[in-house]
Amino acid sequence: MSNNLLAGKVGIISGALDEKSIAWKVALKAHAEGARFVLTNAPLAMRMGEINKLSEQCEAPIIPADATSMEDLEKLFTGAQEHLGGKLDFVLHSIGMSTNIRKGKHYGELNYEWFLKTLDVSALSFHKMMAVAEKQDALNEWGSVVALSYIAAQRVFPDYTDMSQAKAVLESIARNYGYRLGKQKRVRVNTISQSPTKTTAGTGVGGFDAFYDYADKMSPLGNAPAEACADYCISLFSDLTRYVTMQNLMHDGGFSSTGISEDIVETITKLNS
Amino acid sequence: MSNNLLAGKVGIISGALDEKSIAWKVALKAHAEGARFVLTNAPLAMRMGEINKLSEQCEAPIIPADATSMEDLEKLFTGAQEHLGGKLDFVLHSIGMSTNIRKGKHYGELNYEWFLKTLDVSALSFHKMMAVAEKQDALNEWGSVVALSYIAAQRVFPDYTDMSQAKAVLESIARNYGYRLGKQKRVRVNTISQSPTKTTAGTGVGGFDAFYDYADKMSPLGNAPAEACADYCISLFSDLTRYVTMQNLMHDGGFSSTGISEDIVETITKLNS
Amino acid sequence: MSNNLLAGKVGIISGALDEKSIAWKVALKAHAEGARFVLTNAPLAMRMGEINKLSEQCEAPIIPADATSMEDLEKLFTGAQEHLGGKLDFVLHSIGMSTNIRKGKHYGELNYEWFLKTLDVSALSFHKMMAVAEKQDALNEWGSVVALSYIAAQRVFPDYTDMSQAKAVLESIARNYGYRLGKQKRVRVNTISQSPTKTTAGTGVGGFDAFYDYADKMSPLGNAPAEACADYCISLFSDLTRYVTMQNLMHDGGFSSTGISEDIVETITKLNS
Amino acid sequence: MSNNLLAGKVGIISGALDEKSIAWKVALKAHAEGARFVLTNAPLAMRMGEINKLSEQCEAPIIPADATSMEDLEKLFTGAQEHLGGKLDFVLHSIGMSTNIRKGKHYGELNYEWFLKTLDVSALSFHKMMAVAEKQDALNEWGSVVALSYIAAQRVFPDYTDMSQAKAVLESIARNYGYRLGKQKRVRVNTISQSPTKTTAGTGVGGFDAFYDYADKMSPLGNAPAEACADYCISLFSDLTRYVTMQNLMHDGGFSSTGISEDIVETITKLNS
Repeated sequence: MSNNLLAGKVGIISGALDEKSIAWKVALKAHAEGARFVLTNAPLAMRMGEINKLSEQCEAPIIPADATSMEDLEKLFTGAQEHLGGKLDFVLHSIGMSTNIRKGKHYGELNYEWFLKTLDVSALSFHKMMAVAEKQDALNEWGSVVALSYIAAQRVFPDYTDMSQAKAVLESIARNYGYRLGKQKRVRVNTISQSPTKTTAGTGVGGFDAFYDYADKMSPLGNAPAEACADYCISLFSDLTRYVTMQNLMHDGGFSSTGISEDIVETITKLNS
Repeated sequence: MSNNLLAGKVGIISGALDEKSIAWKVALKAHAEGARFVLTNAPLAMRMGEINKLSEQCEAPIIPADATSMEDLEKLFTGAQEHLGGKLDFVLHSIGMSTNIRKGKHYGELNYEWFLKTLDVSALSFHKMMAVAEKQDALNEWGSVVALSYIAAQRVFPDYTDMSQAKAVLESIARNYGYRLGKQKRVRVNTISQSPTKTTAGTGVGGFDAFYDYADKMSPLGNAPAEACADYCISLFSDLTRYVTMQNLMHDGGFSSTGISEDIVETITKLNS
Repeated sequence: MSNNLLAGKVGIISGALDEKSIAWKVALKAHAEGARFVLTNAPLAMRMGEINKLSEQCEAPIIPADATSMEDLEKLFTGAQEHLGGKLDFVLHSIGMSTNIRKGKHYGELNYEWFLKTLDVSALSFHKMMAVAEKQDALNEWGSVVALSYIAAQRVFPDYTDMSQAKAVLESIARNYGYRLGKQKRVRVNTISQSPTKTTAGTGVGGFDAFYDYADKMSPLGNAPAEACADYCISLFSDLTRYVTMQNLMHDGGFSSTGISEDIVETITKLNS
Repeated sequence: MSNNLLAGKVGIISGALDEKSIAWKVALKAHAEGARFVLTNAPLAMRMGEINKLSEQCEAPIIPADATSMEDLEKLFTGAQEHLGGKLDFVLHSIGMSTNIRKGKHYGELNYEWFLKTLDVSALSFHKMMAVAEKQDALNEWGSVVALSYIAAQRVFPDYTDMSQAKAVLESIARNYGYRLGKQKRVRVNTISQSPTKTTAGTGVGGFDAFYDYADKMSPLGNAPAEACADYCISLFSDLTRYVTMQNLMHDGGFSSTGISEDIVETITKLNS
């Protein structure tokens, strides 16, 4: 199904690792809706992933970039504009990594070098992308920049440790750079706060299954699948949402607004009896 | 421009008074995107408005209804389903009225009968619509219900008086009925919190011009126009946003996330010098 | 234990029904901290309650008042000032009632007359109190007005039905009247959003035990007891919090900021295995 | 005036630079309320400041510590416990520094090493303090940890640049470590989001005067003074607030809940005429 919603629009999509990735699905849908774009990922992630397959399907070249490196990002934005023949209409930031989580460190024993690295890779990279875009004047008027976040920025999920802070920084950068790009170029910047998602990255967090199930039971619509998240990204890249900016947009089947669900009440009642 | 985004979808659009109305623009755009629908408004509002013109343009019949009357709403939902040949995919609630505002009562001298009337007309009507829809099982799976709100639900705008409470109730009802319809029918319910808008209703609020200008100066993208709000409604009626529910969605050019803008700083600096 | 924190301060405390009431505990503590005050409750509630005992303990007269009646409230504020010998420093609003909840109506079948009554009794009464106080110029500079709320104003608790809207209105009134009284008299107005509490009123809500247990498991400190809530009220009446206004203050042992707790993870893991 | 509110309590107060510092005023008030404590600041800040005077007034020794150094913090917490003769009841974090702000870098040209340093000094230091406290089991049950924040964590203040992200991290750490210390020791952790304050640190931010004036005009009570902030800290260290945790508490004269004020309306009307 296509509505040609992104006809004529060009952009950059980061973070597609494999078919489960939200970014992967965004790429497929953006392609179907008529967009042209460049794919990017960290050199290392690319070796593990199957991004070449996606590249072919979407007729989108890959420009590898370490998202913490201004040099790499400059090449990415120059290369993308060259390939696409002009300024960009959309950018997707879907990048996150925490060595503290990978190594199973609990919140009381975080390694602080890794903590700063988590912030740099998962959040400052978003600032760097927009700073490069600003310097190169790489964005078209009414462009749209989106990053993927998680509700751990607002509420505590104990196993999410330093990624909680990374998402808080990411959302703060969206507001602050959104102000700036809004004034300069009428470009909007938002984050989507997505349900827990069974991607390769997501399932790496300890206790993932339990909080996936819990969120699913708490959300009247159930957890939002990756595919629906990609649809939502498309709506945010489209011209239907031009005045939505500096927002953190919950895409979670209602989780964030549910205090208690009947499913959880039942579960607890069962346990108590 | 149309992308056929609402092809095959049917619904109800309330609150179109004249060409400035957000609901009017939603109707035009929904029609352009392939939707069929019924228009509704209060019998009195209809006499003053030019809704017949809209009805012709959109090939949409009008079913008058007092939104506080369960009987009227029942007829509206039955009539709409009969005319449209089945259950509904979307509903727009764009209804608000405060006699306290009309009569220029400040917040310290509100008439409490009018206060309750404000809540009944502007907020409980939203509950009633959904209660009728539930009883008649009038909504299709994955349907979308949207109501228009304003940031006075979160922050104080002194001249907005009891409409602030009405919007707080409206948003609360969106969450609570959103939970219910989500569980029952996978229907989503959201409010859009729109910039101050120069509609016939909006401009009736005292001091409107000052806070319109202020909001415009504070918002990096400027105030969101009614037309853009209509676009946003379309995106929320479309299948691109199926898992967004129980949210209050800011459509305000960035106003809500701006603490101070350079324009305001300049203004104040000028005054102080 | 007393620190004489409210020495010389005088006020009105509403809503003390029996020893379990939060307002009851506030009265005892305010008395211990050196405050003098008038107690008030609805004539009907007074017949059922044991408020005379409290009146003796606190040397506080009772002035019955239907909180929806401006006439009664005018008498209450006049009477209180006469008895206390001057203007008031603090007011506690602890009033709530929903016939829809009492009658076990679910959210889809609310009686709308009762709904409006819920709003009138539980929320507009707060506006009325402050309007009377304003008209009588009954508050001292730097006074403090507090009302008790619940997180159902922000998130869905299905059994809380129309009280969710009442609390949303209550909090909105706190902001709006707080703006007004702040400008006029430097008086602050806040709501405390209290954990589910085993009061006579609280336990009347359907499914109370389940969501009490759930909230207790989700809150790192456990549910906040009524006694601690009374302490918090005292801090808000004292001069330590003069610039805190128009806020909804969570008093919930951390519930509102917890996305998932290890206790809940354990519970779900147990059930899934 | 003293109420002996902190009698018997012991703690650590960081960040007192000179008489304008909020931490300085907290120290004076905590001393007056019967607390004993240790003062700490960065070795460099101490050379510039007049902390010795405060030390004498409060009979509080100074233990210098670089708040980014785990070794220094370990010595601080060991030294404090030795001096005070047991575990701690309260900790104040009042530490912030941004080289990007000092050097007048706008948000589009941030130096990323400095950005990470801002986060490390102004936010991760808060995590480190609590991690040290946890490892040393240095906190008493029902202890209270407070850090000072600013509303730039939620809304954009363009000149505040990377300190906005630092405050977002600080508040996120308060929630996450608050969860942990709550479960372990019933210790609460909160941030106070203070009005712009004319401290030596605060006035270093570009455009400070304009947004100080703006905030003052927007806040019904005016900007909260440093002294009132110190009072609020005392209430949070006292036993009156035991169940308040993982909260960001606005101490801002109503700024955060005000959408527009009559003062601002007047200003704009004047300019437009």
